[in-house]
Amino acid sequence: MKQYLKNIVEINDNRKSRVFAYFIQALIFISIISFSYETIPDLDVTTRKVLRAIEVFCVIIFSIEYLLRIYVADHKLKFVFSFYGVIDFLAILPFYLALGIDLRSLRALRFLRLFRILKLMRYNRAIKHFTKAIALAKEEILLFLIVTLILIYFSAVGIYYFENEVQPENFSSIFDSLWWAIITLTTVGYGDVYPVTVGGKVFTFFILMIGLGIVAIPTGIISSALTKSVDKKEDE
Amino acid sequence: MKQYLKNIVEINDNRKSRVFAYFIQALIFISIISFSYETIPDLDVTTRKVLRAIEVFCVIIFSIEYLLRIYVADHKLKFVFSFYGVIDFLAILPFYLALGIDLRSLRALRFLRLFRILKLMRYNRAIKHFTKAIALAKEEILLFLIVTLILIYFSAVGIYYFENEVQPENFSSIFDSLWWAIITLTTVGYGDVYPVTVGGKVFTFFILMIGLGIVAIPTGIISSALTKSVDKKEDE
Amino acid sequence: MKQYLKNIVEINDNRKSRVFAYFIQALIFISIISFSYETIPDLDVTTRKVLRAIEVFCVIIFSIEYLLRIYVADHKLKFVFSFYGVIDFLAILPFYLALGIDLRSLRALRFLRLFRILKLMRYNRAIKHFTKAIALAKEEILLFLIVTLILIYFSAVGIYYFENEVQPENFSSIFDSLWWAIITLTTVGYGDVYPVTVGGKVFTFFILMIGLGIVAIPTGIISSALTKSVDKKEDE
Amino acid sequence: MKQYLKNIVEINDNRKSRVFAYFIQALIFISIISFSYETIPDLDVTTRKVLRAIEVFCVIIFSIEYLLRIYVADHKLKFVFSFYGVIDFLAILPFYLALGIDLRSLRALRFLRLFRILKLMRYNRAIKHFTKAIALAKEEILLFLIVTLILIYFSAVGIYYFENEVQPENFSSIFDSLWWAIITLTTVGYGDVYPVTVGGKVFTFFILMIGLGIVAIPTGIISSALTKSVDKKEDE
Repeated sequence: MKQYLKNIVEINDNRKSRVFAYFIQALIFISIISFSYETIPDLDVTTRKVLRAIEVFCVIIFSIEYLLRIYVADHKLKFVFSFYGVIDFLAILPFYLALGIDLRSLRALRFLRLFRILKLMRYNRAIKHFTKAIALAKEEILLFLIVTLILIYFSAVGIYYFENEVQPENFSSIFDSLWWAIITLTTVGYGDVYPVTVGGKVFTFFILMIGLGIVAIPTGIISSALTKSVDKKEDE
Repeated sequence: MKQYLKNIVEINDNRKSRVFAYFIQALIFISIISFSYETIPDLDVTTRKVLRAIEVFCVIIFSIEYLLRIYVADHKLKFVFSFYGVIDFLAILPFYLALGIDLRSLRALRFLRLFRILKLMRYNRAIKHFTKAIALAKEEILLFLIVTLILIYFSAVGIYYFENEVQPENFSSIFDSLWWAIITLTTVGYGDVYPVTVGGKVFTFFILMIGLGIVAIPTGIISSALTKSVDKKEDE
Repeated sequence: MKQYLKNIVEINDNRKSRVFAYFIQALIFISIISFSYETIPDLDVTTRKVLRAIEVFCVIIFSIEYLLRIYVADHKLKFVFSFYGVIDFLAILPFYLALGIDLRSLRALRFLRLFRILKLMRYNRAIKHFTKAIALAKEEILLFLIVTLILIYFSAVGIYYFENEVQPENFSSIFDSLWWAIITLTTVGYGDVYPVTVGGKVFTFFILMIGLGIVAIPTGIISSALTKSVDKKEDE
Repeated sequence: MKQYLKNIVEINDNRKSRVFAYFIQALIFISIISFSYETIPDLDVTTRKVLRAIEVFCVIIFSIEYLLRIYVADHKLKFVFSFYGVIDFLAILPFYLALGIDLRSLRALRFLRLFRILKLMRYNRAIKHFTKAIALAKEEILLFLIVTLILIYFSAVGIYYFENEVQPENFSSIFDSLWWAIITLTTVGYGDVYPVTVGGKVFTFFILMIGLGIVAIPTGIISSALTKSVDKKEDE
């Protein structure tokens, strides 16, 4: 009996287990969409009831799946404290906690289940290459992250001195200026805050010229390192 | 006769066929521009008539070309269901459907003809390299696309909890927040929605720090893989 | 005499010629800045006079330099029609044309002289590497440019159908929508036009997911190809 | 005695020195945060006093540390004029200068101490690789920086002629247009200035098509060169 269930729940090489896995995946998607849908304001009572029913159904299935996975696991404790074990637990926990009180925030934890999608697909190799690429370029990435943070802080201090007097509401303190620095150096540029003084604009020019390169370098390093590991895979 | 037409329509190594190909290309451009021009509001009657005449002319030529291509094809059915066969059919279909009723939306399908431009130029090698590059890095790209989608959803859930109370009109539900997440993580940053709370801004900072790298990695992988195949071409 | 002047004007390996070159460069900068300064509105009469004097002085020196370069050139016609010969001519031409009439637009041609800066520095090797990199990846770059253009047009057509009814002023025609498509796919995102309908937002999401990769790839290819040529230089 | 202090202050291989280093680091962070906090407007008197106390405390410790470092240095002058020696001096200088007068701007120099963080972590290898990567691609990077500057100036001149008449307040001179050119070519796109004429929009399209590639290339070159040096490290 246990071996039969194990074949369905844990191992993915037979038809039944694949149906089970796809069913759980579909349920994760339904659960995510229903959770998102619930946040729409002014839903009518019927919709709320349907969404509530979907939620109860999903959580019951997820709970059964969780207990099954513990049941079939060779090392029960090891599964409970594994990455997917913790995720599965966190995904159902809020529902039971919220039976008495309303804990909508905690229910957001359900999105963690999305990571299960990664499990189904056999990305072990891709993830291994990614881990290797990170390991290869670890020092360089850390160096650039630190330099990026220093640069963001430096930009915030600089723009504060240029713009604070003219726009005291937008650049009221260095913390406010940090927001500008982040949005500018990542080139998002919402346009909610921007320099208006000549000094601030010239400063922005130099910060962008130096900063864009530095901020973009870690991504470039990871990409190149990844392609390298992909390449090595081919050689083997 | 059939062989003579085939030489003109299908094979591109003689002067007549090249004239024919350039003529069809020019017509595609004219058709596209006339279609775009038609969308300008408040055109006077004369302009409308000229545009209508151009459209009728283009569709007639395209229809003749389509029939010719079927006629000269060795395997007629194979051509009809080939990539370019379907495109050519979709490009003329809306006109005939719209003889009775007005189907302006369908006429937009004409833009599909733009892909014919790719055919004329001999990019077979470049496309082959691109396909190979994609194949090489397929798993990595898929992995990052999934991680990107999870990250976008996570960002939307997070910002919803930070901003919903303060800006209920901009972050009214998770679906609305998804719009913010996409526009921010792609660094487009229209500035129609942006966080105003301290929590939302700090959250945006971390999301950008983690997210920009992840979103940009697939492009980096394709670029590197492409250069690699270009390089191999050189070695051969 | 001619050889003496040639040593100063054309060859850069002695002290006099270097002084001459730096002098011309400084004059180019002064000329550029004075030209830019002139565009500031509401300048007082004295400033205008000073700027006019600087301009006359610069053009006279540039004219003398141009004549000198013709004089010392071994093949006079070859110099006149060379890249730098044409640039030097275009830089002084507007002044003489504008003696009678006001041709401020033409005077902008003076900025072409900025390219002379490239000449002084010995970037021949770097430019050679760049040309080689472009040649290596020519087909791929062209392919992606065409795909980019098709994608921009497709985005414009799509957003036009989604947004035209709701925002007839911002998406009044496909030409207007093209503006949105360019600003969005390059991630500039001014925020002057953006989709407000759900359909338009979902469409934007898919366009960005597909488009960002495609738009960024040519740059990635050039960068990689360039590093490759730099690398080869090292090996030799 | 001197050797005992040297072991703590300069060498990082024993427990005491590590505690000392972490203590200084923590103090740098506290000092930075307190400095930033001070810029928040309308702080009450108590907060101001606490921040002042923290500042005095930090500067006293930093001064002692600075004197200690001079004391234990084998070549005192060499340390004073070394990179970290100058930084340490600049970080405490404003406090003593400001005893009489208020020099808030100068106090910003304290952020320079952030660079000390780089010292603790042993990034010597990563920095060496970075320096090597820069050296490898020096000419290419310089070439692209110059081309970028010329392109920014050219964009500014172009947009000035297209937009000046219609938007004299936003594109009042070439200097104002330069601001637009920088914000557009870096894809920040605040949305404070953007072209509204058809000519200006078409010009922006071409500038973006050419410009984005050029502006992004230096980053790509550095990334690739860096990955290459990381790779070589692995081979050794």
